[in-house]
Amino acid sequence: MEIIQPRLPKGMRDILPQQMVLRQHALRIVEETFAEFGFEPLVTPAVELSEILLGKYGGDSEKLIFFVQHPGGKEDLALRYDLSVPLSRVVAQYPELPKPFRRYQIAPVWRAERPQKGRYREFYQCDADIVGTASMLADAEIIALVYTILRRLGFQQFATLINNRKLLTGIGQYSGVPDARLPGLYRAIDKYERLGLKGVRKELRQEGLDATAVDRLCDLIWPADGRPASLESLRAELGHLPLAREGIDELQELLGYLPSLGVEASCYRFDLAMVRGLDYYTGPIYETVVEEPRIGSITGGGRFDGLVGRFSKQSYPATGTTIGIERILDILAERPTFSARETLVEVLVTVFSPDLVTDSLKLMSELRESGLRCELYYETDPLGTQIRYALKKGIPMLVILGPDELSAGQVAVRDLQAKSQTNVDRAAVAEYLSARLDQATDT
Amino acid sequence: MEIIQPRLPKGMRDILPQQMVLRQHALRIVEETFAEFGFEPLVTPAVELSEILLGKYGGDSEKLIFFVQHPGGKEDLALRYDLSVPLSRVVAQYPELPKPFRRYQIAPVWRAERPQKGRYREFYQCDADIVGTASMLADAEIIALVYTILRRLGFQQFATLINNRKLLTGIGQYSGVPDARLPGLYRAIDKYERLGLKGVRKELRQEGLDATAVDRLCDLIWPADGRPASLESLRAELGHLPLAREGIDELQELLGYLPSLGVEASCYRFDLAMVRGLDYYTGPIYETVVEEPRIGSITGGGRFDGLVGRFSKQSYPATGTTIGIERILDILAERPTFSARETLVEVLVTVFSPDLVTDSLKLMSELRESGLRCELYYETDPLGTQIRYALKKGIPMLVILGPDELSAGQVAVRDLQAKSQTNVDRAAVAEYLSARLDQATDT
Repeated sequence: MEIIQPRLPKGMRDILPQQMVLRQHALRIVEETFAEFGFEPLVTPAVELSEILLGKYGGDSEKLIFFVQHPGGKEDLALRYDLSVPLSRVVAQYPELPKPFRRYQIAPVWRAERPQKGRYREFYQCDADIVGTASMLADAEIIALVYTILRRLGFQQFATLINNRKLLTGIGQYSGVPDARLPGLYRAIDKYERLGLKGVRKELRQEGLDATAVDRLCDLIWPADGRPASLESLRAELGHLPLAREGIDELQELLGYLPSLGVEASCYRFDLAMVRGLDYYTGPIYETVVEEPRIGSITGGGRFDGLVGRFSKQSYPATGTTIGIERILDILAERPTFSARETLVEVLVTVFSPDLVTDSLKLMSELRESGLRCELYYETDPLGTQIRYALKKGIPMLVILGPDELSAGQVAVRDLQAKSQTNVDRAAVAEYLSARLDQATDT
Repeated sequence: MEIIQPRLPKGMRDILPQQMVLRQHALRIVEETFAEFGFEPLVTPAVELSEILLGKYGGDSEKLIFFVQHPGGKEDLALRYDLSVPLSRVVAQYPELPKPFRRYQIAPVWRAERPQKGRYREFYQCDADIVGTASMLADAEIIALVYTILRRLGFQQFATLINNRKLLTGIGQYSGVPDARLPGLYRAIDKYERLGLKGVRKELRQEGLDATAVDRLCDLIWPADGRPASLESLRAELGHLPLAREGIDELQELLGYLPSLGVEASCYRFDLAMVRGLDYYTGPIYETVVEEPRIGSITGGGRFDGLVGRFSKQSYPATGTTIGIERILDILAERPTFSARETLVEVLVTVFSPDLVTDSLKLMSELRESGLRCELYYETDPLGTQIRYALKKGIPMLVILGPDELSAGQVAVRDLQAKSQTNVDRAAVAEYLSARLDQATDT
């Protein structure tokens, strides 16, 4: 029979057990924090009807959608591109869901981006959203959620940048930019880090703004004195424009809640130049950047009050965030503390000789019952080979049940990290192993 | 803007938060037991190259594969159909993985089956497999794993039926069935429950067996005296055929290990008529049926020593099982004990009046820090409305922080199930809530 070369599609990857140690640790922190914040899990299918996805993200994004079909199938299907559009469909489809609807979803999404280091065509998103309230308390909770998760993951220097699409639209009005040109405006502002002020000015001209509009806009966002625009100064300049005023009011209310939610002052700030890429945001927007080491955004979100309305006459305000877990994991993997463990298996149960197999099986069943993660050595190899296997795989503890131990009612326990071996009474061995493993984790 | 009707592709579904309470509970038991048995997590992409999947499952199964493409993409892609073929690809692709390779994977697979009640085109499989050992200890561990998971899920009357493809092939040889006809033989035997002996005999004749072969075969599998064939009687009849003898030896060794692994005698038995559907099995096969209430199989697996060899010259023996979590959940959902909770949220934090919002926020942050799952009530509604919301959503506990409580350094705690309210000192409120919630779960 012909051998098929084992390989992956372009831009896809496997996540092997050794990489899963850190990944599972981080995802559990994310999921537990979601739950503490009152979010509940939702599962939607990977495959959606194409019409649900198309027309929501903006033209460039949509080119990246994967389509799905099966022989004889009559539906136009696609793999989900994010978790916000499926959420909006769900809210529209089940009007009976209690509001506010607070859901989290940790799941892969698919985008046919040009493959590059650290970027995959299937990647996981961790989303938490609140649908059915326009309260700024909801937006404040989302920012507190991000803060709590990043702190628990061990991040020190990071900041959530906060802005508001209403304020940005107001600035557009103030500068004479028609609403239809706003996406181009956002795109241009977004390039400041890369192109600098001069580059952004050029982009804005190319987006069709006249020189006066470009001047007014850039003077507001990047004032000549180098000090970032404050909400107070913006209120003085733009307060006469209803939409700008609404955006400023929302921001002040939102920022006012954060101290009571325990978010440290150094970890958030208003940033008029932060715009977010996607088309569907309508109010507050937020994006978290790690400041040391300096890397791009690791979470992003905002209010998307219009999205449910794309699927139902009954619209609902909504806000939420995506935690960019893949980039976060890349950062965590660089830390020495996390790379220590190679396996989640805690105990290797050796087999002394073929006639003692069933004794080892009984011992192993007991250890597992007490919650220890045990692997059995299957072959009838010398003990030295079995020990080398445990060392190679990084299993920290090993138990031996030979004729001497059996007759003494004991088990030999070898700690492969401390390189020590002790005989322990059979009845106490599970407790002994747990204690040593706890100790090893603490240090 | 045109409203798109919110709907799902044929045969797909959403799993809403209320359904997730039970689902998460069950999946955690499965995952924890996998880990205790020394299995480690593996993630593979949903999308594989088509050539990896095609030619592995048998013709009828392959018609159900979903294909994937993106505009401009040059690869033939497909959604995975099971988790065993991706595992085999992984083992061939990363020869450096330590053997035996024990991995679990809990993930959706896609099959374009005709939609029917309780059957979905995207459904989750829970697989545990051991690659790189031919030892019957591995097969015994898989059966013990299934036993432990089902017991922990609360199943009482179930049995894992155990057979061996080598023995079945030997029976084919004994009856004069050429190897190429074996898949047809399995298919015919598999229909006994539905068609009865007469029907199976007819099927076997249609598969090309002559009358003598059919007689010999049926007399072995369904003896005239109604007593199922024993391994001893089969050894007497078939012991001269090397493959049959090997199958019988394997079965006896495997069955011999199960008591030491704690598997109760009532929960497994040899069953010569259990054949399994898929083509790729090579040795022991197993399938668990629930006997009360009488429903079909809820787990299935076996040895597939040839599958890695489809992707590499270096082949590895392998064995494992799929836990049919969707069917298991259908059964668990019928039990009254599990349908009790409607939400995972434990505490609703009410807001007494707009000027006391920040006090409620501080209280909530403290409760969350101590691990309680809290939701905040966002709107400035009367307390009665807030309480009705908690009742409607099924949140068990509610806290109130009004001016009286604030000045007394207390919090009012309302237990919505016990219909009681108590004032608790602020410093003790998290502990008080946890204790009451634990109590409620126990009863």
